[in-house]
Amino acid sequence: MTNFADRLNAAILAKQSQVCVGLDPRLEKLPPSLVDRYRAEPRKGCGCGRHEIGECFNEFGAAIIDAVAPAAVAIKLQLACFEQYGPPGIKAFKHLGKRAAKAGLIVIADAKRGDIGISAAAYSAAFIGRPQGLDGRIDGFNVDALTVNPLFGSDGIQPFMDDCREYDAGIFVLVKTSNPGSAELQDLEVEAMRAENVETSEVSASSGPSASSGENPRKLYEKVASLVDRWGADMIGESGYSSVGAVIGATHPEILAALRQQLPATPFLLPGYGAQGAGAADVADAFDSQGLGALITASRSIIYAGDGEDFAARAADAAEKMRDELWQAGRRK
Amino acid sequence: MTNFADRLNAAILAKQSQVCVGLDPRLEKLPPSLVDRYRAEPRKGCGCGRHEIGECFNEFGAAIIDAVAPAAVAIKLQLACFEQYGPPGIKAFKHLGKRAAKAGLIVIADAKRGDIGISAAAYSAAFIGRPQGLDGRIDGFNVDALTVNPLFGSDGIQPFMDDCREYDAGIFVLVKTSNPGSAELQDLEVEAMRAENVETSEVSASSGPSASSGENPRKLYEKVASLVDRWGADMIGESGYSSVGAVIGATHPEILAALRQQLPATPFLLPGYGAQGAGAADVADAFDSQGLGALITASRSIIYAGDGEDFAARAADAAEKMRDELWQAGRRK
Repeated sequence: MTNFADRLNAAILAKQSQVCVGLDPRLEKLPPSLVDRYRAEPRKGCGCGRHEIGECFNEFGAAIIDAVAPAAVAIKLQLACFEQYGPPGIKAFKHLGKRAAKAGLIVIADAKRGDIGISAAAYSAAFIGRPQGLDGRIDGFNVDALTVNPLFGSDGIQPFMDDCREYDAGIFVLVKTSNPGSAELQDLEVEAMRAENVETSEVSASSGPSASSGENPRKLYEKVASLVDRWGADMIGESGYSSVGAVIGATHPEILAALRQQLPATPFLLPGYGAQGAGAADVADAFDSQGLGALITASRSIIYAGDGEDFAARAADAAEKMRDELWQAGRRK
Repeated sequence: MTNFADRLNAAILAKQSQVCVGLDPRLEKLPPSLVDRYRAEPRKGCGCGRHEIGECFNEFGAAIIDAVAPAAVAIKLQLACFEQYGPPGIKAFKHLGKRAAKAGLIVIADAKRGDIGISAAAYSAAFIGRPQGLDGRIDGFNVDALTVNPLFGSDGIQPFMDDCREYDAGIFVLVKTSNPGSAELQDLEVEAMRAENVETSEVSASSGPSASSGENPRKLYEKVASLVDRWGADMIGESGYSSVGAVIGATHPEILAALRQQLPATPFLLPGYGAQGAGAADVADAFDSQGLGALITASRSIIYAGDGEDFAARAADAAEKMRDELWQAGRRK
């Protein structure tokens, strides 16, 4: 194993791609002919169809994974889509994570988990660590990286960082989400009044040129960004990036450019491309001169590019087009 | 069905109890004689023991549920403990939720979920709504209430509120968590500068006497509290409480008292009692004159009160003792 950021960057350079395909299966958006086949099957269990939906997600997801693997660097699996179908849904999540890893893709669990103490440690074990088994540690979902929620503060993030170190995994911390309502709390002006906040400002200021560090007050997402910088400081790999990344909505290009200045060693995970409205020009500032520094996520515009029998081929085409647009936008900088 | 807050309050009055037992099974804390039996079983699946751990959690949890049902009002299931064992873990979570409901307990999924748009809707469907099935809506986990993370803002909370209305469920929004690191972000001084924040202040100020509303700047958790007040305003039941509750660490008694003033119609879910250090006197301010207004959560001090063959009886005793301490503390006010 190698440091997560180094593995990610090696994959980006090898494929000349910053594409992360969001695999967020929704029954009502899947190709009708595919769903109809599972609708016609005799139902297992209580007859509610959960097992058949899990199988349907497996078939759909596997076809998407194989189709986009040449053009994409990573797959991001949205846990909510799977969790709503209970154990069969979680089984499909696990199956598709393994399938994507076999296809050579970096696997990101978009679970946005966060808790405190032993609960945070249990979430970490579930996704990137190794849970306690009957006779020692056993495998969890074993994904490459997990999205996490920073609201609990440093002691809520610590268990995830410990597992990142031990298992060469990564986390992407929510810094500024892509939804309109993100402004309500994340854009609040905050004043760094506590001693530990002042200390954080210094760490942030020393890590590179910044549009905002040192200024008070600043916004909550900038404060979270300074924590991300601090959390990731001793997990920087040979490629110059840390295994502690940041989630930033591609729908906020100006914020993205400022955060790139504030966080020169942080890999970004940028949702909002495609269906949510952001284009290649909006994310170009996230890349360094080599094209490293960010994964751009698209879900609907890739996985639902077609809803006929050729849905996988259409997804492959959409992923390839996205790769080319992004790689060229990065080079035009 | 009835409004969630009304169901909760009816149960509190009927049992004269504000006890919520946190069912957070951890293999290394379970009675050794119980775990040993599952260790000795021939293993299903890959042999990793996940299925046997799920069965072990089922046996332990069912015994705890039956033992504490007379003294407790609610069971809070910590998702992280179950999620780390994959599909068999989720199966145990689901099984124990149903078991607790059958035992007449209010079932709270402590999942601290949060996301945006269709992902938030999917989490809501998973726990308190009804997911899309092959031929219409199907059952999800169908718990009474879910803990949720407010970082995404109002549009991230909306899908949960919609399901609260449609299915008479509840949510408990994280306002101030019980861990030491909660100060790092949640205690930041924020300035209400945007137009919508000013509007929020007005809503908050009009809802009752407040230690802080109207003052600027105030802390992030107070800002979240004012949002909770607004989100819950049109879901207040006949008992005078809303189905939108707040999670506040019982480890912060002064903050708790101030938030009780700020949020007179919000049911509180208070972790931190027992093993985390808070006692009955620390939470007394959370109750109104009838003893309503708050569920106090204890996990380790109840479910691990004994680790021998009599663990269930010891848990029953601990829950009964906690009920009496709390009910008397509430009456001494």
